Amino acid sequence: MPVPESVAIPEHAHDILTDLPTGHLATLRPDGRISVNPVALVFDGSHVRVSTLKSRFKYRNLLRDDRISISVPHRNNPNRYVEIRGRAILEDDPDRAFVNEIARIYMGADEYPFDQPGDERVTITIVAEQVSAPKIPLASDPPGAPDAS
Amino acid sequence: MPVPESVAIPEHAHDILTDLPTGHLATLRPDGRISVNPVALVFDGSHVRVSTLKSRFKYRNLLRDDRISISVPHRNNPNRYVEIRGRAILEDDPDRAFVNEIARIYMGADEYPFDQPGDERVTITIVAEQVSAPKIPLASDPPGAPDAS
Repeated sequence: MPVPESVAIPEHAHDILTDLPTGHLATLRPDGRISVNPVALVFDGSHVRVSTLKSRFKYRNLLRDDRISISVPHRNNPNRYVEIRGRAILEDDPDRAFVNEIARIYMGADEYPFDQPGDERVTITIVAEQVSAPKIPLASDPPGAPDAS
Repeated sequence: MPVPESVAIPEHAHDILTDLPTGHLATLRPDGRISVNPVALVFDGSHVRVSTLKSRFKYRNLLRDDRISISVPHRNNPNRYVEIRGRAILEDDPDRAFVNEIARIYMGADEYPFDQPGDERVTITIVAEQVSAPKIPLASDPPGAPDAS
């Protein structure tokens, strides 16, 4: 299945997405609450991708409801961030190619070392529908003073 | 109005909430999408509080729907985090006491310096209903390798 195009992410924010960021991925739970928790991610210039396991809540949440959002702060400056809202596309990662790509980028390892036998990897592709990458006060300052609002 | 009690946040995670963290606050938009973006926060041992403006989406979202979640990574180790899901209580901050407390804690300033004349501050108190503070692989490692899942 071809992945739909994403809304473009402004170029001034691309470095946020490629400098080993930790994103905070939000999905909707069956009880109506929002799940939000940290993830590694890969940005290929158009889409953000994340790896998960079929045993995780986020996978089950997204199977049921494909709405997804992610907040990605710059690794060294939380005043700079990108927020992406859109839809998730789920694809099996049977040869673990994508999770191993994450391991190479984030850990300098050839293989992601923490999975257990039987763990089934899935790649989440975020098709962006809305993107926010504001330039806010202190944007050029060091960390320690995220926006109060 | 007395603030309802929160579900307890495990003590092993309190340092995450008090060491100048940046939380990623998730709310529900009228169009059904999830908003999630970075915020400063104050933890008093039971509740997490955040400041916002009446002009912000998150305030309008929460007026309409009080469901709220926040993902708070440790400032220096994204493998450690706290996720809180619950309800938001909104209270006006007319004398700016709370936003100035944030300025003192995060910026060493007596007053939060970025508001404009007419900006109306609101304090969001998160009443936790569910708390997740997992101990995950690499929890004691330095930053750079957030959990892939």
